[in-house]
Amino acid sequence: MKSVKAFAPATVANVSCGFDILGFAIDAMGDYVEITRKEKSGLCVVSIEDDGGKLPWEVEKNTCAVAIQAMLDDYGQQIGMDIALRKGLPLGSGMGSSAASAVAALIAANRLLGDPYERKNLLPFAIAAEKAACGAGHADNVAPSLLGGFVLVRDYHPLDVIKLHVPDGLYCTLLHPHYELKTADSRSVLRDSIPLKHSTIQSGNVAGFIAGLYQEDFELISRSMRDVIAEPYRAVLLPGFYEIREALKTAGALGMGISGSGPTLFALSQGSEKSEAIAKAAKEIYESIGLGVDVYFSSINTIGAYVLEEKE
Amino acid sequence: MKSVKAFAPATVANVSCGFDILGFAIDAMGDYVEITRKEKSGLCVVSIEDDGGKLPWEVEKNTCAVAIQAMLDDYGQQIGMDIALRKGLPLGSGMGSSAASAVAALIAANRLLGDPYERKNLLPFAIAAEKAACGAGHADNVAPSLLGGFVLVRDYHPLDVIKLHVPDGLYCTLLHPHYELKTADSRSVLRDSIPLKHSTIQSGNVAGFIAGLYQEDFELISRSMRDVIAEPYRAVLLPGFYEIREALKTAGALGMGISGSGPTLFALSQGSEKSEAIAKAAKEIYESIGLGVDVYFSSINTIGAYVLEEKE
Repeated sequence: MKSVKAFAPATVANVSCGFDILGFAIDAMGDYVEITRKEKSGLCVVSIEDDGGKLPWEVEKNTCAVAIQAMLDDYGQQIGMDIALRKGLPLGSGMGSSAASAVAALIAANRLLGDPYERKNLLPFAIAAEKAACGAGHADNVAPSLLGGFVLVRDYHPLDVIKLHVPDGLYCTLLHPHYELKTADSRSVLRDSIPLKHSTIQSGNVAGFIAGLYQEDFELISRSMRDVIAEPYRAVLLPGFYEIREALKTAGALGMGISGSGPTLFALSQGSEKSEAIAKAAKEIYESIGLGVDVYFSSINTIGAYVLEEKE
Repeated sequence: MKSVKAFAPATVANVSCGFDILGFAIDAMGDYVEITRKEKSGLCVVSIEDDGGKLPWEVEKNTCAVAIQAMLDDYGQQIGMDIALRKGLPLGSGMGSSAASAVAALIAANRLLGDPYERKNLLPFAIAAEKAACGAGHADNVAPSLLGGFVLVRDYHPLDVIKLHVPDGLYCTLLHPHYELKTADSRSVLRDSIPLKHSTIQSGNVAGFIAGLYQEDFELISRSMRDVIAEPYRAVLLPGFYEIREALKTAGALGMGISGSGPTLFALSQGSEKSEAIAKAAKEIYESIGLGVDVYFSSINTIGAYVLEEKE
């Protein structure tokens, strides 16, 4: 039977000043999903690798299956599919792990059907899967994983997703420390209401960041990487946060922030030359506070998820 | 004695989604200041025209004099200057009236001294004048009046002002209704704290607006012209606000918002073709609620204030 294998990249949501509205995709890591047509209708999760046994296999709960089911419900035909997932991303890391699974599943399943959906129109199905996985239908991971590059989620009602310009030579370093931080805990520290002046500061910075992307002004991007809304509250949950940022900026990073709701941190830099110095600085600090860390250096993924292999 | 006459354009601050951080300059209207060198040191306001007798002549209070004095204090030489101001802008209208006076004065005085300051470096002096005139040192009128185009005021500490791309074919209609609204009253209705979700909505819209300017995407600009922070509270002070917006959008405007803190309203449009329909719609509504209105249609001023005339 026909099968299609797809890859969807890891993503960084929030991006400091872009709380809940901004995300971008990286080239270095992602999830792999293979979808195989089966005679009998209905979806079946046939394998999950490298998840440490933590992900659900039930089609009502599995992110890949929920995403594909949402698509098939819209498509109007209940095509039978076997779903095989291989995780390239650690779970609950803040790198858009559930988003990458859902997006890879949709890209593969869409191709299996002969690409009836334009890429952008797969987004609502991925958001439905995020809602099942995380309890909230955020788009700031699924949209960049699907579309690539930097993506603005301007609005949800109706959905308005804008792919932004990515300057040449912008690179990302991801620091994934060896401890867990639940999204719910990271969300619970936020305030329901904030000072008006903080909102104005946040708006100024996200506006500066967007202008910096279009103007390819790395200094402006650097100055705009400031979050007064989530970071001050979340930083207390992240050992060494401010020391790490200081060390990374000294090593040449444009700025550093929390990837999604953490615990992974991300840094941006101009060019790849400083990657080793940035990685070294990060490892030293984590070692000094007794925590292990995995460091990934990557270019920005500008094309989004893609099909790796098709078999008849 | 040598004299220089300069013009500084009217400006629209806030621009809906850009509360306190965004402004732009228009070509159609502005203030005129002529500065004449005099033998004796010290500044002197020698004439003020078309202000209805409302502006102060004392050098400690007059916006033009305060701006020039701030410049001379920095310059280190107390050059004698006579200041003649002709208002092209109505006072307290929300069109950046005090900002235009201060900026025209600075451009003229700087030229009189042989342009020792780069244009951008005049900004702190204009902000000092705004502080004297309005009690708060905002930059979202003075920056676009000085620099032209759309200007983002990302931060004040230190001052970070970014000139943004202006799409070809973007036009502005200003509606100046015949009633007064004090900035203090318009400011007092705002809330000191706001829901986090409103801040996120505002950030998404200003990010969309900036992306729309760079991508020259008029539909995106239109969708992003939404203010959830100031407009809902200020609209109640502005008779007919929502009916006027509805009528203007029906007549072809991309969107409509409050210019600065009002009572002037601004609308943006693509191309000049719809200007008459927009003006007609505005006049009809104001007439129906028994208010007079002046309507100005203008291209965006992309060069800022400029010298009109120099005499030896």
